[in-house]
Order: sequence, then structure tokens, then C-alpha cells
Amino acid sequence: MRDFSAGHELLSINTATVRKQWPLDTIIEECARREIRAISPWRDQVAKVGIERIARQLRETGIVLSGYCRGGFFPAADAAGLSAALDDNRRAIDEAALLGAPCLVLVVGSLPGALTGVPAYRDISRARTEVRDGIAASLEYARQIGMPLAIEPLHPMQAADRACVNTLEQALDLCDELDAERSGALGVAVDLYHVWWDPKLAAQIVRAGAQRLLAYHVSDWLLPTRDLLNDRGMMGDGVIELKKCRGWVEAAGFAGYSEVEIFSETWWGKPGAEVLDTCIARHRSVV
Amino acid sequence: MRDFSAGHELLSINTATVRKQWPLDTIIEECARREIRAISPWRDQVAKVGIERIARQLRETGIVLSGYCRGGFFPAADAAGLSAALDDNRRAIDEAALLGAPCLVLVVGSLPGALTGVPAYRDISRARTEVRDGIAASLEYARQIGMPLAIEPLHPMQAADRACVNTLEQALDLCDELDAERSGALGVAVDLYHVWWDPKLAAQIVRAGAQRLLAYHVSDWLLPTRDLLNDRGMMGDGVIELKKCRGWVEAAGFAGYSEVEIFSETWWGKPGAEVLDTCIARHRSVV
Repeated sequence: MRDFSAGHELLSINTATVRKQWPLDTIIEECARREIRAISPWRDQVAKVGIERIARQLRETGIVLSGYCRGGFFPAADAAGLSAALDDNRRAIDEAALLGAPCLVLVVGSLPGALTGVPAYRDISRARTEVRDGIAASLEYARQIGMPLAIEPLHPMQAADRACVNTLEQALDLCDELDAERSGALGVAVDLYHVWWDPKLAAQIVRAGAQRLLAYHVSDWLLPTRDLLNDRGMMGDGVIELKKCRGWVEAAGFAGYSEVEIFSETWWGKPGAEVLDTCIARHRSVV
Repeated sequence: MRDFSAGHELLSINTATVRKQWPLDTIIEECARREIRAISPWRDQVAKVGIERIARQLRETGIVLSGYCRGGFFPAADAAGLSAALDDNRRAIDEAALLGAPCLVLVVGSLPGALTGVPAYRDISRARTEVRDGIAASLEYARQIGMPLAIEPLHPMQAADRACVNTLEQALDLCDELDAERSGALGVAVDLYHVWWDPKLAAQIVRAGAQRLLAYHVSDWLLPTRDLLNDRGMMGDGVIELKKCRGWVEAAGFAGYSEVEIFSETWWGKPGAEVLDTCIARHRSVV
């Protein structure tokens, strides 16, 4: 297992972690100042500053991407919606390529309209079929561009509104169906917050192997957890066995960054510098 | 599929649904008044009124149990704690027998102490081993008494503190390990709130079959869900495909009650009569 204690060369910051403190250009500056070598930015953050400017800033600082967030949200109420989703995913793939991302992370979506509280339908099997078809269509384009797609299984508590792919096994079944040859064009993003509870986690990480393990995200599961979306913990503050799980992905061949992604009203309420410094310290001590 | 529209002979009320409105003896009276034929009471509610009095009241009203809540919480910080948990489960089995329950529902527990925010350990695999051993030990006694044990998989969002059995597949793996002969002594309680999201749900219900399907619970998954424990929805107010899922369990041979179990600050804040009347109406229209 790689030694994280001596430095943070393998740390990446998912920029949602400090999205309420700083715009993306400031985040990149603050990361560069701390010799953080990788980030994973969100599309809305990129758009706000301008993608050309972000691309230039990345070149200047030498900071690379560990992923790009995000594509997905395939299910829709009607054919026009499905078509719009595919268009949007093509744009996300183009942006990921422009920024030199190693993969585009897919939060696949679920019941269309569920985030507004009024789903267009309640048939999660239908959503799963539309997700499969949407990934298949996007994959064609992604292969042309050379941009790997990383399906991120989301915690089952987000199954209705954010992603109907909810276990690593389910994500890998999709990979097997759509990229049977294990070409590297399709894989998974393993975010421990979403999958730590799964009794099949270790076995499915082995099944994934290096070709399918495209991204690795860490945070922690708090006791108690007060919100289904924005109450993630800083690594070490919860119950996830971070080192054990990292051992699993590394044994399976994963050699990429350990990306910190914390959606948390608590951490968004602290100074950005304190958050980044804590991420570095915890990366070295408990991740 | 059984027709629920004409009456509510197959409705059961899990008494947690109105636990803040009434003590258990009043709940039984109010159910009898509405010709609700079955309930599933909780141990603390029974203890508060007195088990002999509740047993007598059940005989007098003709109300039967669809289950008894609950045994479980096997993992512990030390040997004394494990032993105390087994003692407590034996008492729960005795109470279930005294009340004529068809099964004792097991909420198996997880990291010991997690409900207080300070777990004694963070190794969920260890908790799972202790759960398996605890069920095995309890099953010996339950077989002597003739009381079936129903493992209830809980939603993964409750994996740290309430139950480390989180999918129907995992529960059935335990059944296969501990009761390979499918004797009927060990099975599952399928609560749709906990398992509705699972892409393997339909297949695992088939796998369970009539011998393993000991209880069936309904409520609904709300959009948004504001609390990890006490924000369940009344049937029809959320996104769970209730009729489709009931079709699956009935096709697999389940012939028992459809038990309403709603933990909800919203519904606990309404008059008990309104809650029961709504349960009856929704049972007939959307369950």
C-alpha cells in the first residue's frame, strides 16, 4: 500500500469541498500554494470563471485533474429531454477533454423531476433502462474523443432523485454490458461515502480491477448523519475504514489520486484555508 | 394478486406508526373499532402496559400479530455485552411466543455504541460476524420455542448504527448459511422502505420464496426525505411502486398481512384516528 504519511503528492481536492468559500480560480491558487497537485472541478464552477481561463491556470500551475464532475442525469420525461441530456453529456465530454481530465464522472440520474419533488414517473426500472441507453449513446462519442466515462454508484438514499445506480456491482454490470472488452473507455468512480456499507464492496473492487477503477473518492460517514446530502464528514471523523478500503483498491491495481469530496454545511462554513489544511493533514494521517 | 380494494382484512398496523399518540392498549382498541385484524407491536410499548394485559386484550378483540418488534442488536463491545444481547433476545422470543406472534423481527444492530455517536469499534465486518453468530445462537433457542426469526434488512443509510444487514440478498445469504434446509425457522422481513431501491429486489424476492418471506412492511419514500430515520411517507405520498412490489412477494407465495410501519414526525403529529383511517384508505387504494 502506498505511504501517504510523508506527503500529499497523491491528494486531489474535489472542488465542491470548498465551493461555498471560493470561486474555482481561487481554489486552484490555494491548492497550488499548498502543493496540492490535483483537483476535480465541477462544471458550474468552471463555467463561472470560464473554461479557457481555467485551462490556462491549470497549465501554469501544473495542477492536473483526477476527474471532471460531472456528466449523467440521463432519464427524462420525454424524448426531447432525453435528447437534451445526451447533448449536454457530449458538451461535458468535450470540456473534460479540453481540461485534460482522465475521466468524466457520471452521476447517472434517476426519476426525472424528482429533485423538484415531482417525478415525471416512479418506475425506477425504466430510469435504469434509460441510464443504460444514455451511457451507451454517450460512450460512442466518448470513445471518439478518447475520454473514459466513470459511473459513480451513489448511496441508496439518493436512489430516487440523483442516481439509480446504487452499488458497485450494479455499475460493473453496466460496464460489462457496454464495454465487455474492458477497453478502458468505461469504468467506475468509487466514492467510499456511497459504497462503504456494501457487504460486497471488497469483492466488487477485485472484480473491477485496474481497468475499471477510474477514480477514488474519500470523506467519512458521521454519527449521527443529519442530512441525506450535505452532512459528509472529514476523513477520520466518522466510521468508514479508510485505510482498509484504500488497501483494497490499491491491491486491485488502482494507482491514481485519493480525491477528497466533502459536501458539508459544516465544512462550507469554515475558512477555505482551514478546510484545505485539514484535508492535507487527514490525507496523511487517516486516509 | 390479492384484491385490497374491497376491504382491509389483510392490513396490519405496526404500532410504532401511532406510538406518540396512544399507549398500546388504546391502539388495540382503536384498531378493533376499525376492524383492523392484525398489529405488530414493539416491546417497549408492550412492557409499558404489561404483557399479560396485552395478551388478554388480543384474545378479547381477536386481533392477531403479524410480527413482534423486535430482537437483534447483537454486536457488542465485549463478551459481557454479547451475552446480555443473547439473553435479551431469548426474552424477546418468549414474549413473541406468549403473544402468539408468527415471527420475531430482527433489527440486527451494527457498530456497538454507534447510536450514542461513539462506536466501540468501526469494523463493520466484525459487526457482521457478530450478527451471524448472534442469530445462530438465538436460532437454537427459537427453534425450541417454535418461534421463527425474521431478519429485516435495513436501508444502507442505517448501516452504521442500526443494522449491518442492508440488502435482501445479504439477509438471504444468512438464511442459507444458518438454515440451509429452509425449515421455516429463519426468514426475512421485507420492509419496502429499506429495500425498494435495490436493483436485485425482484430476483431476491423470488429467491426467498414463501418459506423465507415472513413479514411484509409498507410505507413510502418521500421527495425530499428530510431525516434518515423519522421521515417516512404514508403509502401513495412517495415514489415506491407499492403494487408492483406486492405483486412480486405474492407471486413468490407470500400470503400474510401487509403491515404499515411509518416512522414520521409528520404523522406522529396528527390525531391517531386520522392516521389509522388514512392507513385503511391507502391500503385499499394504493398498496
